[in-house]
Amino acid sequence: MSTDARGHPASERVRLRRKRERGSYDSQTIDAILDEALIAHLGIVDESGQPFVIPTLHARYRDRVYVHGSSASRTLRALRAGASACLTVSLLDGLVLARAAIHHSANYRSVMLLGTARAVDSPTEKLVALEAIVEHIVPGRWAEARPPSESELKATSVLALALDEVSAKVRTGPPLDDAEDLAWPAWAGVIPLAISPGTPQPDPRLGPDIPLPGSLGAYRRAASP
Amino acid sequence: MSTDARGHPASERVRLRRKRERGSYDSQTIDAILDEALIAHLGIVDESGQPFVIPTLHARYRDRVYVHGSSASRTLRALRAGASACLTVSLLDGLVLARAAIHHSANYRSVMLLGTARAVDSPTEKLVALEAIVEHIVPGRWAEARPPSESELKATSVLALALDEVSAKVRTGPPLDDAEDLAWPAWAGVIPLAISPGTPQPDPRLGPDIPLPGSLGAYRRAASP
Repeated sequence: MSTDARGHPASERVRLRRKRERGSYDSQTIDAILDEALIAHLGIVDESGQPFVIPTLHARYRDRVYVHGSSASRTLRALRAGASACLTVSLLDGLVLARAAIHHSANYRSVMLLGTARAVDSPTEKLVALEAIVEHIVPGRWAEARPPSESELKATSVLALALDEVSAKVRTGPPLDDAEDLAWPAWAGVIPLAISPGTPQPDPRLGPDIPLPGSLGAYRRAASP
Repeated sequence: MSTDARGHPASERVRLRRKRERGSYDSQTIDAILDEALIAHLGIVDESGQPFVIPTLHARYRDRVYVHGSSASRTLRALRAGASACLTVSLLDGLVLARAAIHHSANYRSVMLLGTARAVDSPTEKLVALEAIVEHIVPGRWAEARPPSESELKATSVLALALDEVSAKVRTGPPLDDAEDLAWPAWAGVIPLAISPGTPQPDPRLGPDIPLPGSLGAYRRAASP
């Protein structure tokens, strides 16, 4: 079953390598995937060679991706110490139902970023990164929220990964059954998938005089293209 | 911002370690997360120590997780050769909007599985694994699809990861603002998120006499609990 993210025929796989200086369409594709994805999966390796893959919030800002967390986090400490990293984001756009079991697949867009992280220690850039992350979650939210204090900034570790060695993979379109299977009597096609928001749930401690902002009532994540 | 998957206060973090023989609630939680997640992120390390994190379809079957792909896949060949792996699945259940920027977070359920993979070479177990993966995508689909041929089975690499060293992390509930921020005049709460299917798109090559099966018209992925 060439159904997974690695097994597509070359014809339906697009691998893009970004060169920032080219200002290419490739960069736009990569940026759009990084921006639409709500979470990333960050891979690092410990001293024994064991990989760890951790879900994390992220945000692209210009030519870099920021991640953050508690200064006590083992993952972030390893990154600060120069560990090689891989940050991957994946958008699942649909389930591909082929006639042949082996050709079941998924439509998706993913970006893989390799490199070592740069520790962000200046309070100014830390604020830029935290603003990017909050705005990535909900555009417009940074202006509403209580800004970080000096001690909160100190307790937060922020890291930047440069968008240098980065690639995208995209699968779109219908199943690719072999010609001799086209008469097989099973439905074939794609079930599109999207992330959809439900009704906002107010914090039980929210005062009765604070309404839901219009931006949240209309909140939605971009659907598949 | 303790907003990412690693930065929650201990009070809202649940870390579960599975012991199969206990038949515990922990196992049920881990199984449910693995079963609901449509894709996994698989981490391996190359010879130079560079981690790679790759999205892939997966399926839990009893006490193991199967992944598969082309026999030519570099990742699968590394796994067959005994590379240490980390398979992580993440379900994003909601965006947590706190009053303080630093306390923005996400509600999620994730499972992290560590280990080395076992190559599945027996055609019998390969079929079990492929059936599990197709059924994981759409329950009932295996019986409709054209079964794999002998040569398709040979061209497909299947690997099993035992559910031995595995843990879950879960964040639920409202934002955890500090008491002194409760009067901050911003809406606070959770925006629930779920994966929702769109209208099935028939393969352009589908014959006009093949209807959409009832199971697909009603397809939906379990929402957040």
